[in-house]
Amino acid sequence: MSAVVACCQLAPQFGDPAANRDLVAAAVADAAGHGAAVIVLPELMSSGYVFESQDEALALAESPDGPTVTAWARLAAEHDVVIVGGFCEAATARPFNSAAVVDASGLRCVYRKAHLWDAEPKWFEAGAAPPPVVTTRHGKIAVMVCYDLEFPEWVRLAALDGAQLLCAPVNWPVYPRPDGERPSEVVRIQAGAAVNRMFIAACDRVGTERGVPWVGGSVIVDADGWPLAGGSASVGSQMLLAECDLDAALSKSVSPNNDVLGDRRPELYERVART
Amino acid sequence: MSAVVACCQLAPQFGDPAANRDLVAAAVADAAGHGAAVIVLPELMSSGYVFESQDEALALAESPDGPTVTAWARLAAEHDVVIVGGFCEAATARPFNSAAVVDASGLRCVYRKAHLWDAEPKWFEAGAAPPPVVTTRHGKIAVMVCYDLEFPEWVRLAALDGAQLLCAPVNWPVYPRPDGERPSEVVRIQAGAAVNRMFIAACDRVGTERGVPWVGGSVIVDADGWPLAGGSASVGSQMLLAECDLDAALSKSVSPNNDVLGDRRPELYERVART
Repeated sequence: MSAVVACCQLAPQFGDPAANRDLVAAAVADAAGHGAAVIVLPELMSSGYVFESQDEALALAESPDGPTVTAWARLAAEHDVVIVGGFCEAATARPFNSAAVVDASGLRCVYRKAHLWDAEPKWFEAGAAPPPVVTTRHGKIAVMVCYDLEFPEWVRLAALDGAQLLCAPVNWPVYPRPDGERPSEVVRIQAGAAVNRMFIAACDRVGTERGVPWVGGSVIVDADGWPLAGGSASVGSQMLLAECDLDAALSKSVSPNNDVLGDRRPELYERVART
Repeated sequence: MSAVVACCQLAPQFGDPAANRDLVAAAVADAAGHGAAVIVLPELMSSGYVFESQDEALALAESPDGPTVTAWARLAAEHDVVIVGGFCEAATARPFNSAAVVDASGLRCVYRKAHLWDAEPKWFEAGAAPPPVVTTRHGKIAVMVCYDLEFPEWVRLAALDGAQLLCAPVNWPVYPRPDGERPSEVVRIQAGAAVNRMFIAACDRVGTERGVPWVGGSVIVDADGWPLAGGSASVGSQMLLAECDLDAALSKSVSPNNDVLGDRRPELYERVART
């Protein structure tokens, strides 16, 4: 089945969840108006990213039944779309860097980032559950957050669980790269898609926040790992749209006799889970 | 420590191991003359690739003390280099698609391809041992063969065992790709290098054999995943040379607080080794 996937690359306003809900409402309406069926938002879209204290993160944390995810679920119902977006999730102790999946039926799941980046352990607990795979009417959709993508084991788990499309809210910091090269995160997403024959949509943010710039490298890649939209650094808000034949991800075949999952030899990978 | 790594992208003559030894002798002398310390040769350099029967593969198989690997060891001693090359390895029953590592001291190890491509199971047994990591005076060098590279678990094992440079003899079949894109195998090598902070040198072949063309996409990438040499499709024999600061692969740091191996959560990857 084919579905239009969108990445709404936005500039969250630090510490202003209400303003960020407004940004998302406008972006989701725009994407849905262009036919999007699955819409990906950046990491920590509810709060912004550059925390300076534990108290800030606690103050901006919301539970999944709080105003942000509730508003996203309302948008999903109104526009009949699936939305995958990052938010600062309140928990009994410290918050999680989480992503919610909502559709017309409401909240489908919350995923908690398991691999934390740089200063994040100062504000966030790490999740310990694998990337969930949600069955939608467009196909099976997995979710993980930013640095999680850098661990091929984690991407593999999503594919082993049948994901046809992996949606990843991200906030990519700017790293140097040779002239003419795509952001390195994009290269790794291309590879992660191809070795699993799975579409991947990563939605980055823009907007310098407390002096920190971002790549603005949102990308949607197909099951061969080729970018369908985006993949270059950019400074402004933008909406990526790509028609994705998600059924292509049901076939893992790469030659008359090869299958990227069937050819695995898990009994030989034991040390990957031990070391 | 810095070392010049070379890929000698050659056109093996099918079924003519003596001619192929001559090709290698000339290429190794050329690479060593340009300062190469580590030289990678294509997959099945001894025999060619496009077998049409089990008998052909059996007839072209050589043991590690046969003429091809012995000649390579002699070249390694003569030029004081490390050579990693693919050969058709004789065994008690059917052959293996193997790679030998030789240096001035002689044969260091033989690796047997564990993930077989397309028709290969008709001629070859699959290996069952992980990619070996050999300590050389230039640093720790791992080896695997072609389709093995498409399994991030396998590349990870090499990194977990301390490899600073992964050398891979390959024979890449030609696949369609969008205009302006690198061969997809190169993209996956870039990713494999970056997520492990390890150099990778993959030596492809050229020369249409029994009607089968090859990518000719040999590449040497650094520990950030950026190509230092090669990475584009080519039709002719060529020698890639790249000065590699292999000590860079000893640091797995990617931010003040992140380490690509240390940040792994192996206890959460258990299903990767089970499914």
